[in-house]
Amino acid sequence: MVENRPPDPSRRSERSRRAIYDAALGLVGEVGYPRTTVEAIAARAGVGKQTIYRWWPSKAAVLLEAFVALGDRVAEENGAGDARGLPDTGDLAADLKVVLRATVDELTDPAFEAPTRALAAEGIVDPQLGAEFVQKLLDPSLRLYVARLRAAQEAGQVRADIDPRIALELLVGPLTHRWLLRTLPLTHEYADAIVDYTLHGLAHP
Amino acid sequence: MVENRPPDPSRRSERSRRAIYDAALGLVGEVGYPRTTVEAIAARAGVGKQTIYRWWPSKAAVLLEAFVALGDRVAEENGAGDARGLPDTGDLAADLKVVLRATVDELTDPAFEAPTRALAAEGIVDPQLGAEFVQKLLDPSLRLYVARLRAAQEAGQVRADIDPRIALELLVGPLTHRWLLRTLPLTHEYADAIVDYTLHGLAHP
Repeated sequence: MVENRPPDPSRRSERSRRAIYDAALGLVGEVGYPRTTVEAIAARAGVGKQTIYRWWPSKAAVLLEAFVALGDRVAEENGAGDARGLPDTGDLAADLKVVLRATVDELTDPAFEAPTRALAAEGIVDPQLGAEFVQKLLDPSLRLYVARLRAAQEAGQVRADIDPRIALELLVGPLTHRWLLRTLPLTHEYADAIVDYTLHGLAHP
Repeated sequence: MVENRPPDPSRRSERSRRAIYDAALGLVGEVGYPRTTVEAIAARAGVGKQTIYRWWPSKAAVLLEAFVALGDRVAEENGAGDARGLPDTGDLAADLKVVLRATVDELTDPAFEAPTRALAAEGIVDPQLGAEFVQKLLDPSLRLYVARLRAAQEAGQVRADIDPRIALELLVGPLTHRWLLRTLPLTHEYADAIVDYTLHGLAHP
């Protein structure tokens, strides 16, 4: 009978993996990166330390994968596109507003905010961790902006002399600045203004 | 005779103050904010702990003043305007490029970079320190951008419907993003592109 089959090992390890991710993100948000240890992650996840070391070489590696998984989950919930690309309805301003509003929601989501701040703070003072963070977490999402802006160039909506890799920083830079430094509230209205200013510029035409 | 006069106490305390600032900035850049103590600052500066506590209530207070003094010194060296305002030659693009290039020089100046990263990282995870950092260090310089953009609006160079407080984030946000996260090199060419894109926008006119 079905009930008597042994538990599916891939299902069990998927549960452990998820528990390890949750423990790692919870701890780093609560005590910061330096004080988050593999031992503490294992204890909170209810697994042995060796289980973690079997799958990942270091706490940085666990955390980076936990963030990738968290990012995928939050992006899916917020409907801001996925690993395949940003929305492309043909209306660049509308599409960018969807994406930047979703980014605001993500950055202010409690499940996301504390661990992301802790990792960002550590990456700022630790160049090696920072480089891994950028390469594995940030660059893949920045490439989606490059692709969307290139499509807009091909559609004749964005000037051909614009470098999309620089241009995207006018969109993500202000949101990150306001979020990291908490200068003023991070709202959908702010996201919309950033898109409008970026597309049309400040100067009188 | 002049040589026999007792040392000028204001000159002596100015020397101590400068030694304390240098010690505080050096330490925070080397060991990070949490491990920088008033004791260690006093020892490195060659003053008693009580001298520090006579002038400042906490290490955060010493550090914030040390950063204000450092910022004034670096801004003066780089000729990027001062507390009275950004350059205003009437050519907004040229003036902003001077300021953003000077910001690039400041952010990549070794005397400035390590302590500023350490303080920024701490402010990101410590909301109270972050708020002091913004209020005492960041906001005063952001207000200079607001004033310069308002002058440009009055001169008819910037559209009247632009909110200068939001617009300035298209200028400072990308530089901060690239600097903090080390995504790509922070150069004068990048500063120039940010100014051009911000003023003229990405979209076909």
